[in-house]
Amino acid sequence: MSVTTPQGFRAAGVATGLKTGGALDVALVVNDGPDAGVAGVFTSNRVKAAPVLWSEQVVRGGVVRAVVLNSGGANACTGPAGFQDTHATAEHTAAALTTAAALTTAGADQVGAGEVAICSTGLIGERLPMDKLLPGVGTAVRELSRTGGAPAAEAIMTTDTRPKSTAVSGDGWTVGGMAKGAGMLAPAMATMLCVLTTDAVADWKTLDAALRAATRVTFDRLDSDGCMSTNDTVLLLASGASGIAPSQAELTTAVTAACHDLAQQLLADAEGATKQVAIEVVGAAGEDEAVEVGRAVARNNLVKTALFGNDPNWGRILAAVGTTAAEFEPDAVDVAVNGIWVCRSGAAAEDRSKVDLTGRDVTIRIDLHAGPVAATVWTNDLSHAYVHENSAYST
Amino acid sequence: MSVTTPQGFRAAGVATGLKTGGALDVALVVNDGPDAGVAGVFTSNRVKAAPVLWSEQVVRGGVVRAVVLNSGGANACTGPAGFQDTHATAEHTAAALTTAAALTTAGADQVGAGEVAICSTGLIGERLPMDKLLPGVGTAVRELSRTGGAPAAEAIMTTDTRPKSTAVSGDGWTVGGMAKGAGMLAPAMATMLCVLTTDAVADWKTLDAALRAATRVTFDRLDSDGCMSTNDTVLLLASGASGIAPSQAELTTAVTAACHDLAQQLLADAEGATKQVAIEVVGAAGEDEAVEVGRAVARNNLVKTALFGNDPNWGRILAAVGTTAAEFEPDAVDVAVNGIWVCRSGAAAEDRSKVDLTGRDVTIRIDLHAGPVAATVWTNDLSHAYVHENSAYST
Repeated sequence: MSVTTPQGFRAAGVATGLKTGGALDVALVVNDGPDAGVAGVFTSNRVKAAPVLWSEQVVRGGVVRAVVLNSGGANACTGPAGFQDTHATAEHTAAALTTAAALTTAGADQVGAGEVAICSTGLIGERLPMDKLLPGVGTAVRELSRTGGAPAAEAIMTTDTRPKSTAVSGDGWTVGGMAKGAGMLAPAMATMLCVLTTDAVADWKTLDAALRAATRVTFDRLDSDGCMSTNDTVLLLASGASGIAPSQAELTTAVTAACHDLAQQLLADAEGATKQVAIEVVGAAGEDEAVEVGRAVARNNLVKTALFGNDPNWGRILAAVGTTAAEFEPDAVDVAVNGIWVCRSGAAAEDRSKVDLTGRDVTIRIDLHAGPVAATVWTNDLSHAYVHENSAYST
Repeated sequence: MSVTTPQGFRAAGVATGLKTGGALDVALVVNDGPDAGVAGVFTSNRVKAAPVLWSEQVVRGGVVRAVVLNSGGANACTGPAGFQDTHATAEHTAAALTTAAALTTAGADQVGAGEVAICSTGLIGERLPMDKLLPGVGTAVRELSRTGGAPAAEAIMTTDTRPKSTAVSGDGWTVGGMAKGAGMLAPAMATMLCVLTTDAVADWKTLDAALRAATRVTFDRLDSDGCMSTNDTVLLLASGASGIAPSQAELTTAVTAACHDLAQQLLADAEGATKQVAIEVVGAAGEDEAVEVGRAVARNNLVKTALFGNDPNWGRILAAVGTTAAEFEPDAVDVAVNGIWVCRSGAAAEDRSKVDLTGRDVTIRIDLHAGPVAATVWTNDLSHAYVHENSAYST
């Protein structure tokens, strides 16, 4: 149930002092091959962290043999010096893997810096302490193992309260994965750090198509707090170690299932949240419109605070829908909260007191009556704990 | 300092039982002429309350002799029956004004329902108790006076903690005004209820140009919580009673000053806020881009919670700027918080510990280095009190 579940991958998670209290803070995932295929999606934020700029180049190169991930610092908004830090980390990792007796990567007796992707997460705007990070990478190389997926998933946590891992089985091949992310969770792209691994045999094009199809309907529809990160990265590494080449559809289905599982784990652990909310938009004229409506509701602070207060305030939902450009008639919209149609044809319908909001799971269903398309966006409520956690985070 | 400061206006505020505890909840503003000019701007939310749909028609008619405003219910998402309630309120008001001995409107021995604008504010989705509202209008007609501006401003309060009124003097003429609004404060239009009055002589075109120019740089740039209302209405009534016709520029300047004063009063009284934040975007390529950047920062919950925590977290500001389509280079952006340039060229600069955020007023200055244009957007922080107030509002 981790990045080391598929054959051909080793991982490690070590404590280097980037985080206080001896917590694990550097993860390393190595692809031992025989293939070293990769696909990636990155934040669409125009202010991109140094490791995002670096890893975008690496993924374009088409070969990734290792991924280094650190918590305890985002290395974003750090200027040219921050980019040099990322570059140095990749070079250091490549050298350590090349010299390590542990290196077993088939077909590669040395690893190049351009084959090492880097991911960072933590506070924006501060340089990473390289005197801790680089020795930590060396330790991680020495600790690489086929059971290292669990400590790796732990090492990438920031405000996460628990690690997130997954595995999905194909017919003789597997997809594994880990992710982190509890705040700055909003899409338009991947919304956190995520490394997926597979021992399937697949070329770049197949991997890329599978990853883009998967993130479009999972991470891209997770909008916990409307705040897009500078560091979001989702990588899919393929070792080919199973020797089996699934079809595009089979691979896409498995990668989507892995992303969905991880996305739901992120939703469940979002900062301060007391509710996990599925906003199901149906009857839309198109998918983009359904997602636009779902996202407008997901980002509405008055809807989110109402849910925190166990208040099925459908008027606020309708007011949020009304800010979109989606096709609908205001007097044709129906809204159900946890199965009770509190709004029909844009006005009050069933008694709102029938709505039970005491549980953690909430489903808001919005029928636009404008077409045949449906899409779901996931979000959380806005709680005192969210305000507390994010007003105290960097101090 | 109210809607009755200009000559030719009377007003009243009465308690009808729409709100509990004997609070004032119905306001009436009457234009006694000789003119009955009007301009209006309304919410751009596609889910519009019945009184907005009604008043848009009335304003298009070009003559408004009275405005009825109620708190205690928004009459939004109430279907055809809700629209009939608004229509009935206008008819009842017109009849009461026509029969009242108090009617002194020059040139009009009777008032038509189509000359009565209606504004409502309060909970969305519930019908107004007409058995209380209509008798209340009758009481308000009897209580109309030249000093009724103060109780009228009080009667339109919802979660406002204090009434908002203003007056701006021209050369022999005056602009007065009142407004309400403490939540669901976000533009793309007027963002609350506001009635402005003037005794200047001005035709429809001049009034409309003055009001649109004024709201564009005041209410439309106030984004307290990112949530657009279904009921936002700003009306400008002109009595012509001063006999003086100012120039377009003079009238626009005075109306803008009145709107700015009221907008700042709204900002100061926003639900649960502990900070009033001016986001000054400079060096933009265009005004729309400057406003887009300011609004992206204003709506970012992580920026808002950081401000609540007295944390000059410029990384979150840059991450918010990065979500926009405005012209800028990420490594060229400077950010100052309360005068300290904590970010230069997209990276850390002056020591963030120098920033003093203990006061209520905060100024964030963002220099995009992309052009000559500047614009300011105003917002509030996101506090525990905001969450509390909005999680408990309708229950």
